[in-house]
Amino acid sequence: MTHSTTDTTVQAGRDTLEAAGRLVDRWMADEVNWSSLPPQLAEAAQYGVLGGGKRLRPALVLSCCKAVGGCDEDALPAAAAIEFVHCFSLVHDDLPALDDDDLRRGRPTLHVHAGEPMAILAGDLMLAMAFGLLADAQCAADVRASLVGELAHGTSDMVAGQVYDTLGGLPDALNAIDQVRLVHRNKTGALIRAACRMGGRCGGADAASLDALTRYGEAMGLMFQIVDDMLDVTQPAEHVGKATGKDAASGKRTYPGVLGTSACHDEVNRLRDEAVAAVTALGPAASPLACLAELMAVRTR
Amino acid sequence: MTHSTTDTTVQAGRDTLEAAGRLVDRWMADEVNWSSLPPQLAEAAQYGVLGGGKRLRPALVLSCCKAVGGCDEDALPAAAAIEFVHCFSLVHDDLPALDDDDLRRGRPTLHVHAGEPMAILAGDLMLAMAFGLLADAQCAADVRASLVGELAHGTSDMVAGQVYDTLGGLPDALNAIDQVRLVHRNKTGALIRAACRMGGRCGGADAASLDALTRYGEAMGLMFQIVDDMLDVTQPAEHVGKATGKDAASGKRTYPGVLGTSACHDEVNRLRDEAVAAVTALGPAASPLACLAELMAVRTR
Repeated sequence: MTHSTTDTTVQAGRDTLEAAGRLVDRWMADEVNWSSLPPQLAEAAQYGVLGGGKRLRPALVLSCCKAVGGCDEDALPAAAAIEFVHCFSLVHDDLPALDDDDLRRGRPTLHVHAGEPMAILAGDLMLAMAFGLLADAQCAADVRASLVGELAHGTSDMVAGQVYDTLGGLPDALNAIDQVRLVHRNKTGALIRAACRMGGRCGGADAASLDALTRYGEAMGLMFQIVDDMLDVTQPAEHVGKATGKDAASGKRTYPGVLGTSACHDEVNRLRDEAVAAVTALGPAASPLACLAELMAVRTR
Repeated sequence: MTHSTTDTTVQAGRDTLEAAGRLVDRWMADEVNWSSLPPQLAEAAQYGVLGGGKRLRPALVLSCCKAVGGCDEDALPAAAAIEFVHCFSLVHDDLPALDDDDLRRGRPTLHVHAGEPMAILAGDLMLAMAFGLLADAQCAADVRASLVGELAHGTSDMVAGQVYDTLGGLPDALNAIDQVRLVHRNKTGALIRAACRMGGRCGGADAASLDALTRYGEAMGLMFQIVDDMLDVTQPAEHVGKATGKDAASGKRTYPGVLGTSACHDEVNRLRDEAVAAVTALGPAASPLACLAELMAVRTR
């Protein structure tokens, strides 16, 4: 059986991503209370949050909300909150004491732009503000509380993944590929999974739909990181917008390093099919989610 | 009119603080899901959270909850959450790029103990976990959501205060003492205020009681920082358990630096009276709050 990804579905995924990015960028610029902050803290946090990026996580929040019958407005605070957390994690991961990266999204990283003290504090602020956005959302209190739980646990798992990835501590009993999976399920997967579940909760998903979105999110998260690992090997920095070739240089365990490139391609295709299958039962409203999966399987940056 | 602080009220404050500390320490050790974390991340976060400290903020949460008719059990997750945030802020503030402190609570700071990368990540984890503790609390969803709002905004204000204190950006239009007040109202006051309001919300406070607890918290927060500034001038490091004399050395604006020691004593007495007066209307259940104010006015570490 061959998979029939068409240019049309990939383009539809691209359109979904771009539309979500425009919506959430405008919301983050206009609806977040930047003016109450010390001016240079506001500037640093805006640099970290508003400086581009794929906006995949917000797109997943919005698309998952709509897949279960909600609308964009129901999900925009949650979409912004998860992007705040994602951007906080990039700012801190880029710090000299951690990955020591100078380039992110084609621009100097925040600690290069504003200094290390400000990058630490602005990252902290972004994380705290994410939860403030959820607390202040207009939806029902039980939905707000559930969104906080999803985001908090997703963030904790993400930090755990960063520790596994950079500081070690992986269980010796696991073989190499299961170790890589454990890193990535936490480091990247947890927040992508949380994005999907948060979108579902914003749209009032029932248990079965939330379960479908969870399986979609787990497949998407793993697929995203495998593609990321492959781009680190194959693409120049100026194309990806951040340093590449660092995984091999630092001796990190990666998917292509453990499985080889060909098996990685197979794994990407398998996970894409799994993601698409998970949301098929949700009907036509979930078709943007399928298109996002097709796009993420073939992205080159 | 002379104030009649007795040894008895100060001792009662000490007893309240110690009882709260024992309760929240046990809760944080036993009820927090440490075992799901990478072992060295759990160790670092526990080092940051469980390593002593006055536990003033948890004591305020518990005592404010009880002042409006709640019980300890209603407020323990919130008490733990605010201590997680306080400890996260100490871990990050101590980092080499910020205050560069080696000593905290009489022990090496976390970055000395576990390295700078781990201190950054464990701090991030502690902040995320704080919100997870609130999301998982057993109270009603609207209370949980309100607790998240209080903690998120208190944390954002605290970070803003740290920026004002270490990186500048204070409005030039303010005179020296108003600048110091703005720093401290954010850096220390915001989280102490949040602790009081969170305790009130856990205990089901009505609007008038919540307002009383807010005024109490605002007076306590400012008083706490004035005393802290004075201890930095007058006490040796081995007594306070952290480096002292740093404010003058770094040229930071402080209360004693701007007002002089004598006026600081007057201001502490005034704020203590204001705090006590704010909660008098709550009746005998608020007497531990009054005793905590008496204690904080005369503390020597």
